Amino acid sequence: MHNIPNQDRARVLVQALPYIQKYAGKTIVVKYGGNAMISNELKDAVMNDIVILQLIGINVVLVHGGGPEINDMLKKIGKESKFVNGLRVTDKETIDVVQMVLAGKVNKTLVQLLEQHSGKAIGLCGLDGRMIMAEKKAAAEDLGFVGEITEINTGVIENATKNGYVPIISTVAGGYNGAVYNINADLAAARIAAELKAAKLILMTDIRGLLQDKDDEETLIPVVNVSEVPSLKREGIISGGMIPKIDCCVEAVRRGVKRAHIIDGRIPHSILIEMFSDEGIGTMFY
Amino acid sequence: MHNIPNQDRARVLVQALPYIQKYAGKTIVVKYGGNAMISNELKDAVMNDIVILQLIGINVVLVHGGGPEINDMLKKIGKESKFVNGLRVTDKETIDVVQMVLAGKVNKTLVQLLEQHSGKAIGLCGLDGRMIMAEKKAAAEDLGFVGEITEINTGVIENATKNGYVPIISTVAGGYNGAVYNINADLAAARIAAELKAAKLILMTDIRGLLQDKDDEETLIPVVNVSEVPSLKREGIISGGMIPKIDCCVEAVRRGVKRAHIIDGRIPHSILIEMFSDEGIGTMFY
Amino acid sequence: MHNIPNQDRARVLVQALPYIQKYAGKTIVVKYGGNAMISNELKDAVMNDIVILQLIGINVVLVHGGGPEINDMLKKIGKESKFVNGLRVTDKETIDVVQMVLAGKVNKTLVQLLEQHSGKAIGLCGLDGRMIMAEKKAAAEDLGFVGEITEINTGVIENATKNGYVPIISTVAGGYNGAVYNINADLAAARIAAELKAAKLILMTDIRGLLQDKDDEETLIPVVNVSEVPSLKREGIISGGMIPKIDCCVEAVRRGVKRAHIIDGRIPHSILIEMFSDEGIGTMFY
Amino acid sequence: MHNIPNQDRARVLVQALPYIQKYAGKTIVVKYGGNAMISNELKDAVMNDIVILQLIGINVVLVHGGGPEINDMLKKIGKESKFVNGLRVTDKETIDVVQMVLAGKVNKTLVQLLEQHSGKAIGLCGLDGRMIMAEKKAAAEDLGFVGEITEINTGVIENATKNGYVPIISTVAGGYNGAVYNINADLAAARIAAELKAAKLILMTDIRGLLQDKDDEETLIPVVNVSEVPSLKREGIISGGMIPKIDCCVEAVRRGVKRAHIIDGRIPHSILIEMFSDEGIGTMFY
Amino acid sequence: MHNIPNQDRARVLVQALPYIQKYAGKTIVVKYGGNAMISNELKDAVMNDIVILQLIGINVVLVHGGGPEINDMLKKIGKESKFVNGLRVTDKETIDVVQMVLAGKVNKTLVQLLEQHSGKAIGLCGLDGRMIMAEKKAAAEDLGFVGEITEINTGVIENATKNGYVPIISTVAGGYNGAVYNINADLAAARIAAELKAAKLILMTDIRGLLQDKDDEETLIPVVNVSEVPSLKREGIISGGMIPKIDCCVEAVRRGVKRAHIIDGRIPHSILIEMFSDEGIGTMFY
Amino acid sequence: MHNIPNQDRARVLVQALPYIQKYAGKTIVVKYGGNAMISNELKDAVMNDIVILQLIGINVVLVHGGGPEINDMLKKIGKESKFVNGLRVTDKETIDVVQMVLAGKVNKTLVQLLEQHSGKAIGLCGLDGRMIMAEKKAAAEDLGFVGEITEINTGVIENATKNGYVPIISTVAGGYNGAVYNINADLAAARIAAELKAAKLILMTDIRGLLQDKDDEETLIPVVNVSEVPSLKREGIISGGMIPKIDCCVEAVRRGVKRAHIIDGRIPHSILIEMFSDEGIGTMFY
Repeated sequence: MHNIPNQDRARVLVQALPYIQKYAGKTIVVKYGGNAMISNELKDAVMNDIVILQLIGINVVLVHGGGPEINDMLKKIGKESKFVNGLRVTDKETIDVVQMVLAGKVNKTLVQLLEQHSGKAIGLCGLDGRMIMAEKKAAAEDLGFVGEITEINTGVIENATKNGYVPIISTVAGGYNGAVYNINADLAAARIAAELKAAKLILMTDIRGLLQDKDDEETLIPVVNVSEVPSLKREGIISGGMIPKIDCCVEAVRRGVKRAHIIDGRIPHSILIEMFSDEGIGTMFY
Repeated sequence: MHNIPNQDRARVLVQALPYIQKYAGKTIVVKYGGNAMISNELKDAVMNDIVILQLIGINVVLVHGGGPEINDMLKKIGKESKFVNGLRVTDKETIDVVQMVLAGKVNKTLVQLLEQHSGKAIGLCGLDGRMIMAEKKAAAEDLGFVGEITEINTGVIENATKNGYVPIISTVAGGYNGAVYNINADLAAARIAAELKAAKLILMTDIRGLLQDKDDEETLIPVVNVSEVPSLKREGIISGGMIPKIDCCVEAVRRGVKRAHIIDGRIPHSILIEMFSDEGIGTMFY
Repeated sequence: MHNIPNQDRARVLVQALPYIQKYAGKTIVVKYGGNAMISNELKDAVMNDIVILQLIGINVVLVHGGGPEINDMLKKIGKESKFVNGLRVTDKETIDVVQMVLAGKVNKTLVQLLEQHSGKAIGLCGLDGRMIMAEKKAAAEDLGFVGEITEINTGVIENATKNGYVPIISTVAGGYNGAVYNINADLAAARIAAELKAAKLILMTDIRGLLQDKDDEETLIPVVNVSEVPSLKREGIISGGMIPKIDCCVEAVRRGVKRAHIIDGRIPHSILIEMFSDEGIGTMFY
Repeated sequence: MHNIPNQDRARVLVQALPYIQKYAGKTIVVKYGGNAMISNELKDAVMNDIVILQLIGINVVLVHGGGPEINDMLKKIGKESKFVNGLRVTDKETIDVVQMVLAGKVNKTLVQLLEQHSGKAIGLCGLDGRMIMAEKKAAAEDLGFVGEITEINTGVIENATKNGYVPIISTVAGGYNGAVYNINADLAAARIAAELKAAKLILMTDIRGLLQDKDDEETLIPVVNVSEVPSLKREGIISGGMIPKIDCCVEAVRRGVKRAHIIDGRIPHSILIEMFSDEGIGTMFY
Repeated sequence: MHNIPNQDRARVLVQALPYIQKYAGKTIVVKYGGNAMISNELKDAVMNDIVILQLIGINVVLVHGGGPEINDMLKKIGKESKFVNGLRVTDKETIDVVQMVLAGKVNKTLVQLLEQHSGKAIGLCGLDGRMIMAEKKAAAEDLGFVGEITEINTGVIENATKNGYVPIISTVAGGYNGAVYNINADLAAARIAAELKAAKLILMTDIRGLLQDKDDEETLIPVVNVSEVPSLKREGIISGGMIPKIDCCVEAVRRGVKRAHIIDGRIPHSILIEMFSDEGIGTMFY
Repeated sequence: MHNIPNQDRARVLVQALPYIQKYAGKTIVVKYGGNAMISNELKDAVMNDIVILQLIGINVVLVHGGGPEINDMLKKIGKESKFVNGLRVTDKETIDVVQMVLAGKVNKTLVQLLEQHSGKAIGLCGLDGRMIMAEKKAAAEDLGFVGEITEINTGVIENATKNGYVPIISTVAGGYNGAVYNINADLAAARIAAELKAAKLILMTDIRGLLQDKDDEETLIPVVNVSEVPSLKREGIISGGMIPKIDCCVEAVRRGVKRAHIIDGRIPHSILIEMFSDEGIGTMFY
């Protein structure tokens, strides 16, 4: 890499031009998670990608999860979790930990990290400015404080981007009764993207994208029209953990986001590569 | 109270007029803590006070501590604290808990509470927009991540107030090296008030104010010129836990805040009473 | 009154909150007249009410009459008035006196009075910025310079409120031919309220409101839907001097003003009481 | 005049160009009075002059007196005036008449007249927005409500010009005690011009200007440096009724107005002639 | 002319008032050409007219041709032109000369001339900001770089007028392929006028206007409704060189320009005379 | 080049970040000339460089010469030039050609070229908005219309950049007497850069930069403090054609431009390389 001569560097910039022109002034919502939030090298690359996008006039909104940190903290206080259909039964003590870890630890640590990469950031959660309002998720078995989004208010997000700050968002939501609910971060990102009329939703995952044969990374499906999703599910190509991710993409596109992407966060600079090349990376839903 | 006839209610409003005129468009920094942050009735009264001030055009900035919640959490994870001269020795595990509890739990819970009283709020900490930058506090014995403020950046605070949100602030600070430091909340409030050129700093405490005879609440000293503080210390009238509180008031006034107040947070609506009466409440430093 | 303790005062302010929130940024047109414009104590109370409303962000527009002062002046110059159906036959000399007394004496004296209560005011009449344009009122018998409104231009009013001044308005109107016309002040207030899309029109009178039994003030009808007015007239409940007042309320509501009120100007602070209590005061038309 | 061919008309416009360029965006204060306020033909010419100035981007502020109308009204109510050193002893009844006639009759009638010439106007007096504040004039003999200017607040004037209205101003002033004072209109015009940093003060009079020989209009002195005024007084060239007029000019220039003019209001379009020719008209003080 | 007394001059200004009021803030597109662009006296008069219009708040956009200068230059380089149906066959060498002469010589010389008359000007051509886009004109015989307008972008024109500059425009246009095309200046003026929603298009010519009898200047037809044009052509009243001029007027009116004028540029100040008199000058199409 | 993998491309962008941050919102004046204005490949590279700079928020102002095109045209019309001390004796016919070729041909052709690379451009010369005012250059022998800059007015330049257009500037200047002068383009660029308080002046030349040994390109002097220039001249290191170029750099720095560069326009993307690398390219004067 360090051998790239200056002229080739200049050409790389020139070749990035049409992509910059395409997205300047637009909003991109990135759901951050997985390995890209664990490895230090990947974290640095993500922060650099965000700073460069912000600098060339693209509004980046970063939505994050934090499952591993929540688990660590629950373990630390000796709390055991019960799961129903893959959803954590969230009692009062658990939701307190979720709020504390996401909005207090993961979120503000990301804020500081972006600032160390000379970005400007502000850490928000769904409670700030009533950004994410929710009600208790209906379920066969009582899941406790697991919520379903009822309303998105983008005021605090837009104040941040308008003033040059990258909003970094934890997805705990407020209830009308004063309760706090845990919310699926992918879905929150999709809903926020829709409300902001974002040009793109990017979900960072630990897989290549949607694969024709899930065991062969060479069989990546680069582009999917959301109308094809039901048949892809029937054929079993969309299955398992991919289902909720892809449902988020479909939800975002249905609500007006131009393009939703599932990209491989394990590849350094995957966001920039997605934004600044024709072939992109991962799978795009439109 | 409910017997107050409508005409007397109108007169109360009319009599509040000169105070409203005096502070409209100005900024007031309130350091929130003590009993006023514990009793539900007092919490409601504080929230109502803030909402009414905001509504009549006064910018309120709320800075909070959270010692009791930090202690609870440390106890929960079985961490014992060592104290040196009243300052907690703060190792990495402890500062993580401090950040998490203050910025994730106490802060966001206050945001939600103010919104339930129909205010608009945003929860911030010293890491957001590099609001409070600090370096390790010099001390005879190593105190760990206890910091000393080096820089206040009010960008995110001013964006909030300009857009009609009450900024609620946790006082964890960022270090230039990426460390996080615990910061004395009273002092942070004083410094923020100075940087915002606030008209008032109000410290909510669990005492009446400065007393001539500390055992007799009837001996309240209502007004103190900051130049009298040294002799009041020599006479022992300012002593014990009052010293750091009053030093904060002096610091704020020295840096340009017009008036700094120590008020009794145990009295409901003490903020409004302080703002909207000639005699005020507690002790005023100027 | 002076015995109300500070805490109760604070509670009164807190209880005013929802009303302030409801009307902040809205426009209220008050037709000022009757005893409230004669008694010094009542005048002070009205001025205080207006200043407090303006301060909390409500745009107040004050429209006034001035019958008694006109009569005094006419008597002083030895001019006798002839009346037809309760309307003064207004010859050239009379309209000159009307203009002079309303726009020169009553109006500017009110401006000064509001300013002495630390309000900001500007005195306008229908001639300023062609605010009220009129033509000769058609009538069986020639009434002289009695006019009918043909056009309302709110430019000068809006410049005043936008710059923080309470516009105080005399209702003499200009004709397209350069004549000046006397205009019914209640009706002018209703038309101005409609043109400004005011949230409220308040007519200050010397009665309680609309009474079921006009001799029993305990029989106040607090709320009337404008569609009920015709039947209330048929039943004789709306009769005599109430008819034109209530017709103004109906006119205002028909033209889009949310609520029109007939309140008792003899009660001090009747405007504030109307605005800041659920039960209100007087009769509301909607 | 009507024989001027179109091409010559075009040339007249072209020749006005440098004068328009010189004053565009500037403020001109005109003290209106004398014959120019009596003859209908002259009144029309003044109104046309003002409208054209406003249209080409010059802010005109019109200050008027109204002695004859005040005298008529006082006579009408059978009030006799006593004079001391040429100043009317102004009791309460008299000041009421002064306020009423100036602010209610003369002022608003001028507003309507300008609007009939398709100008936009707003009628103000010294009470509006506390524009002219005064205190009782010290004098050997008690003059009653004759005032001396203590303060000029140009807020309402500037709001008017900024919004395209010509402010027309009566010079009754408010006292700090709620009294109303009669004020010399020439002096008020000079002080307002100074406060507005006007480019010109124009006093319309019934004389040619300052004459070397007061009985020979051919001896007009076209330009006077204010430093020459004392010697011109000693020589008796400035004498009699000219003294206060010229003192106003000196006052205006001393307080920063670039040029003050005494022009002959009996000549139609004297304002335009003054503004749009090199030689000007009347006497200029600088 | 120089004998016009000052008062008559003032009256001329006053009589211009209604015309100024009518066009203030509006846009006028003037196609400049013919004798008015040759005689120094006429050039001065045109420049003065433009400056005065700009000064009183009318946005003037000047579009010019330059046939004679192009011919001179072609002759100088020994290039002979071939004409087909009155259109010059424009090879690469010729279009280079056209661009150079129009945009480099005629245009910038006009800019300097207007500035010498104390106007503010900026010289533009159809290439600036892609103002005039064109494609090759379809024709029986190949005309080379003669273009047909496909698109008008008024960005650079509006930036100029918004900032107080008169845009002076050469009508060379850009092709999508990088070619440059020569464009008929009358037609370009019409299209620009339409795109700017101009109040007037004025074509300066060397004839009186449309004449009933083309050999008798006394038979001028002052006003034509564009719907009458076809029958006027059939009758032979519109014929010869008048046809394309009048087609431009029709095109402009059809596309929304209020009025289009053919005026006689040989008369000094013909633009001002057209704008500032009821009878106007030349022939008006509406 | 096309083998650079996407990740390396992303890294190139990330590494450009600090340079983008450094110059965002700043102004860069580029003097364009030499081979970079002849070779099509180099022209494309320059246009791309400018578009990318503009897009990331850097205001680029392009100043160009055009000696070869002027010579071609003069030859075409059979005009021979006489030179005195390397300066062309510029008679009226010659200055006409200079103006025509620079402002009409070279300038507008560059405008079109930049637009074909999807930039936004506007072509200006020193006559537009009186941008460059000059007087006849004093010289032993009469040089004709060779001018010396007396005044720079940046109004039209700033309107262009503010509205997102790259101003492209020909350096013909206007005289106060209406004459047009030819101006040295390097010097004009230096003066414009100074007036705009540009962050950088870049002179594109056909040499590497300042060389220790002018015959050995390996002896490039990368950085020169302007105070060293006199001694470098004495030593003969700065000599010949370098003298005026370097004098321009010195002039720019002396007048407040932070940095002036002599770069090698023969290297593709030399502007980007200079801006986006630490080592830069060519010689920097500060």
